[in-house]
Amino acid sequence: MKSVIHGILFSAITLLSPSFFAHTSGAESKHIISGFDAQTSITQRQLETRMDTNISTEELDTWLKHMSAKPHHAGSAASKETAEYIAQLMSSWGYDVKIEEFEVLLPTPKTRELELVAPHSYTATLREDSLPEDPSTGIREELLPPYNAFSAEGEVEAELVFINYGRPEDHEYLERHGIDLAGKIAIAKYGETWRGIKPKLAAEKGAIATIIYSDPADDGYGKGDTYPKGAFKHESGVQRGSVMDMPTYPGDVLTPGIGATRGAKRLKIEDATTITKIPVLPISYRDALPLLSAMDGAVTPPEWRGALPITYHLGPGPAKVRLKLAFNWDTITIYNVIARLEGSKYPSEWVIRGNHHDGWNHGASDPLSGQIAMLAEAKAVAALAAAGAPPARTVIYASWDAEEPGLIGSTEWAELHASELKKKAVAYINTDGSSRGFLSIGGSHTLEDFFNEISADVIDPQTGVSLKQRQRAFGKISGKDPAAKKEAEERKNIRIAPLGSGSDYTPFLQHLGIASANLAFSGHGAGGSYHTLYDTYEHFTTWRDPGLAYCATLAKVAGRATLRLANAGTLPFEFVALHDNVNMYIGELETLADTMRTQTESTNQNIADGTYGLFLDPRKKLGPPKSQDPVPYFSFAPLKNAARHLEKAAQAFSSRAPSNNRTAKQIRTFNKLLYTSERLLTMDAGLSGRTWFKHHIYAPGFFTGYGVKTLPGVRENIEQRNYAAVPGEIEKAAGILHQMANRIEQLNAL
Amino acid sequence: MKSVIHGILFSAITLLSPSFFAHTSGAESKHIISGFDAQTSITQRQLETRMDTNISTEELDTWLKHMSAKPHHAGSAASKETAEYIAQLMSSWGYDVKIEEFEVLLPTPKTRELELVAPHSYTATLREDSLPEDPSTGIREELLPPYNAFSAEGEVEAELVFINYGRPEDHEYLERHGIDLAGKIAIAKYGETWRGIKPKLAAEKGAIATIIYSDPADDGYGKGDTYPKGAFKHESGVQRGSVMDMPTYPGDVLTPGIGATRGAKRLKIEDATTITKIPVLPISYRDALPLLSAMDGAVTPPEWRGALPITYHLGPGPAKVRLKLAFNWDTITIYNVIARLEGSKYPSEWVIRGNHHDGWNHGASDPLSGQIAMLAEAKAVAALAAAGAPPARTVIYASWDAEEPGLIGSTEWAELHASELKKKAVAYINTDGSSRGFLSIGGSHTLEDFFNEISADVIDPQTGVSLKQRQRAFGKISGKDPAAKKEAEERKNIRIAPLGSGSDYTPFLQHLGIASANLAFSGHGAGGSYHTLYDTYEHFTTWRDPGLAYCATLAKVAGRATLRLANAGTLPFEFVALHDNVNMYIGELETLADTMRTQTESTNQNIADGTYGLFLDPRKKLGPPKSQDPVPYFSFAPLKNAARHLEKAAQAFSSRAPSNNRTAKQIRTFNKLLYTSERLLTMDAGLSGRTWFKHHIYAPGFFTGYGVKTLPGVRENIEQRNYAAVPGEIEKAAGILHQMANRIEQLNAL
Repeated sequence: MKSVIHGILFSAITLLSPSFFAHTSGAESKHIISGFDAQTSITQRQLETRMDTNISTEELDTWLKHMSAKPHHAGSAASKETAEYIAQLMSSWGYDVKIEEFEVLLPTPKTRELELVAPHSYTATLREDSLPEDPSTGIREELLPPYNAFSAEGEVEAELVFINYGRPEDHEYLERHGIDLAGKIAIAKYGETWRGIKPKLAAEKGAIATIIYSDPADDGYGKGDTYPKGAFKHESGVQRGSVMDMPTYPGDVLTPGIGATRGAKRLKIEDATTITKIPVLPISYRDALPLLSAMDGAVTPPEWRGALPITYHLGPGPAKVRLKLAFNWDTITIYNVIARLEGSKYPSEWVIRGNHHDGWNHGASDPLSGQIAMLAEAKAVAALAAAGAPPARTVIYASWDAEEPGLIGSTEWAELHASELKKKAVAYINTDGSSRGFLSIGGSHTLEDFFNEISADVIDPQTGVSLKQRQRAFGKISGKDPAAKKEAEERKNIRIAPLGSGSDYTPFLQHLGIASANLAFSGHGAGGSYHTLYDTYEHFTTWRDPGLAYCATLAKVAGRATLRLANAGTLPFEFVALHDNVNMYIGELETLADTMRTQTESTNQNIADGTYGLFLDPRKKLGPPKSQDPVPYFSFAPLKNAARHLEKAAQAFSSRAPSNNRTAKQIRTFNKLLYTSERLLTMDAGLSGRTWFKHHIYAPGFFTGYGVKTLPGVRENIEQRNYAAVPGEIEKAAGILHQMANRIEQLNAL
Repeated sequence: MKSVIHGILFSAITLLSPSFFAHTSGAESKHIISGFDAQTSITQRQLETRMDTNISTEELDTWLKHMSAKPHHAGSAASKETAEYIAQLMSSWGYDVKIEEFEVLLPTPKTRELELVAPHSYTATLREDSLPEDPSTGIREELLPPYNAFSAEGEVEAELVFINYGRPEDHEYLERHGIDLAGKIAIAKYGETWRGIKPKLAAEKGAIATIIYSDPADDGYGKGDTYPKGAFKHESGVQRGSVMDMPTYPGDVLTPGIGATRGAKRLKIEDATTITKIPVLPISYRDALPLLSAMDGAVTPPEWRGALPITYHLGPGPAKVRLKLAFNWDTITIYNVIARLEGSKYPSEWVIRGNHHDGWNHGASDPLSGQIAMLAEAKAVAALAAAGAPPARTVIYASWDAEEPGLIGSTEWAELHASELKKKAVAYINTDGSSRGFLSIGGSHTLEDFFNEISADVIDPQTGVSLKQRQRAFGKISGKDPAAKKEAEERKNIRIAPLGSGSDYTPFLQHLGIASANLAFSGHGAGGSYHTLYDTYEHFTTWRDPGLAYCATLAKVAGRATLRLANAGTLPFEFVALHDNVNMYIGELETLADTMRTQTESTNQNIADGTYGLFLDPRKKLGPPKSQDPVPYFSFAPLKNAARHLEKAAQAFSSRAPSNNRTAKQIRTFNKLLYTSERLLTMDAGLSGRTWFKHHIYAPGFFTGYGVKTLPGVRENIEQRNYAAVPGEIEKAAGILHQMANRIEQLNAL
């Protein structure tokens, strides 16, 4: 294998001019790259250095300025233009480009009315201010006003109840106050949980509408100076966003599980379970203040209060609001740009790299900061190919449409091409909004070594050390506890985070079982522009990534990921880290059950013996919590045995001797067994209650939305106190791990 | 001894009418009271029940209304009237009453001017609003406007720097930003540390003045509805208060260590070290808002921000203020009311019970809620005496003047009578402001069993269970961690908290070594009226203790404490709990040193190897912390050996057989050795750097003010990184504990 790969690269290198090898000094001193040998590691790094020199912040700036010049949400003329712009660029660099269209339901706002009708009146403006300091904010052509996509429509009038972040525990607290949401309108803060969870849970509790506002404590003046003086949320800023029930299934609401092609069989709108049950409207904190000030009732607990200059009350009322929402329930065409560079050696092994192109508004940060990095990467990879170093595997650059309303472009494409993807897709690498600071990597744990090698090879533009050194510094200083700090000091790799949801990797990872990753920079480029009118070129280049140095660095990181996956002799999947992380999750589950058991016993005891009655203030309404069924002991033995099986197999794989004499066919077989191993972590039947989600190690939380739940079948049934289901889920997850271990043993035997 | 005590009570009881024994059913089923035997426990409880029936909420209400009718700060005509009112009541009940006068320095405000002079102008009102809903707030005769007593005077103009709570760690953070306080005016939030610490530390850093304001997050609308709608701080409310450097010495600033009698030798004002070095002024959040809004510079860290609707900045400037303060540096006469009831059996053993009577304004909560409880108790105790059951020991009820400006009345009295008190004082029981909720007991750990017996005997007025059961419920539900909850469930006693400072027990406990306690109810009667114009009858009876049921209960608790200490055959000091707590403190010190050592090493390492440089945002000014000398290992062995000595002696004392055949003289000797044992925890030399504080187990923190530091010599030298002093302090503290253990062994041998 080694010689084969070497042969490929050698043939490429012979075509290159001497200047190709500039800036490679020191590369020899580096470690061998996983999947490469000593010699091919050197040539691969030379390719990467060459790629880097083709990444230009001037070009990034040009593309960013062009694509963020106006609002370009899915369905807008500008969105189509953006797709065409990207397609044209990709074409010009030598990609084989197709624009793949889907027909999807996308409601846009027709009527949005919100007024306080008691105890006095106030009409919400529901409008974001144009700012003289930022000319982009004056460009409002095709601007979608603030709304939540896939909200139900209707007109309602009722008293307000403040539900904090609208999480399950927030509702439990309201119940302790005897507050019934039935017939009321919930007002919730953005944050802490995915926005779609808020109306979903509120509706389950009987609320007839939900208003969501951005509290200044979370991303407004409570965090820092507001735009345009600073990066944080302008008082009129409103976070748009989808409230589709994505934890059930993302993508077109009418075509779950299948591609939304023109002739596809569709559900009736009324049968689409992922549209909210009640109207939902997002508002600014400027509009929220009069509503919240007019509320009364019990004072919220301290941890519920935000940064408005009022005492926060739970209600209900006396603030009463009227809310009217109506939408255009249009079917629109969406445009995925699919640019392909055929693999020179393994054309039917696909490395897929994606970023969406639709934005709620100008979308400078979300999605364009990632999109321009992908373009720079694509251009550089094409230049290498044009210079005679094409990727060994097929590389597909995908610019997705309609990510914002519900990962629609990527999901429909993944669903349409599911069977081919399951056979051919090696991995999916995603980017989306990015800013400045530390490299954050989420993804399949089989790629932990792989990404650690990359982060060790790429230099941070501000400090001149490797990205990995900065990640380690982050963990050493900001680690939550001494154990976390110690890990940051001592663990060979920086962990990559398990993926929940929130961007286009979801259909690849969680529906199809394709090893995936999501890359971004964050930590030093915060702000409150997310999904508002203020996510502009001016905001991004002032506050998030001045000079676009981190966008360029993102291109270098993702470009290495793409190129290494494309060129590696043996695909760089490793299983020791998979075991290490899964084993940690199993430990977390045991701790979770133990903690819940102890707390439940203690709380039940304190309820039963009247301790709450002696603790709580009899002059206040807050009652004791409800008692809960005791938490039984679960046998985690099947999971632990499976993890041990996985560990042994992984260690053997990790310490295998290099095989230098495989045939091309053997290599293909070996690699296919490797890259399809992630499929073994899925089950066709999916997660119970949401069968679209097939992965049994990673899923977005059913009640958190974006937040990941690892070993979700087991974890969520413990958390939700469905104790009876836990043993079965433990068996399922254990089965999955044994399956993976068997596959590794099969690889070890080859 | 038993028979002697029994004889006293029997003789008393024979004089009582049969109705005296009403409401005593069930008393027999209770445990024997420490210091009593089975029979005298019954008669003592009968006395207490009789006492309870003499405590009337109607009378409490009358006294509260009368004394809170107008402002009555030390030095005002109303303060003298209040003293005379209390004296007259005490006299009328049969006490031998003296008003003991002292001549003390008390500056009052002459000029208070504060204006923002750049970048725009604002003149602070420095005035609290009268509210139509609360007529008391319209009564402003002799009202002291908002000021800080013992501030320096002067006129300064400079830029503002925001110093958060003004603690040492806040200054460290400012230094990381390169912000120099020299020549600047510091603006600090009230809270977290005693107010006098803020200007003290700011002055050390070079600030030329300090403004202190009450952030609405701490006791304004951020905590709950504001007065008069709710209990929390009105936007114009200002917390007055002393900024005298009480952790150095409290009391008259000109007569440290001696009574401020007319002819006493006095320091010159300029030599009084406890007057602040710089001008200090407290303001409302309404006045603070324009100042803070005009500031800029780096944004504060999230945990520094309050609840004003702005982004909080560190400065310096551009907000610039002019502050002018001038005071009348008058010597005033203060009036301590000393009411004595001679002991029938042990007249030269004194049980002292105190509460101050001066208030910053109307003072309904502080101090009158405690004062009326003391009056009710005093009246009931006198009634028992009049009915033939006088206390066996002398009981002294002290109503202190001038507590607010610096514990002046109590301190001068304790200093003047120091030598007699050291001989005769059995214990000092203090109350001060109190509200509603859970009984909180601070004090000498030798009284832990004693107070636990009392809290088990007194019924909570809202729930009908014992106060101790409510305390236990509080710990079981609100315990900080599982260990704290477990302790609340399982430990026989509820711990009593070690005392720092903040009320009149300080001279007794920390200067004279008299076992002391401080009693209050808290937890359900919060608010923001403290030291403002709004601490009125209306506020107190609406928000803090409606119906005064808890004031009445406080009288029952403190009354039992007084009566049991007065009547016990053997004084109820116990040493097992002393050991248990001291041993816990020793453990804390070891943990403190270990934690500091690990953190210091880790921080130093992260500084030295450049990790901070890789972690911090290079676009921001925040730099790494300063490296610190490594923390050496200290030998805690001397303390541990001493604790073990104490433990053995305490256990032997605790399990000693009752002695029934002691002579009266033997009893007196035994009791004197008992009650003077607390003196052994002091050293005449005092704490290093603040020799007025003699106690080596309890002291107010030099940099926290009110907050206690246990084993202060050791703890503060570790915290302040004076490592060289630690071994000597360990030896000192160990010596103290051995001394106490020797005393207990002496008692065991008797």
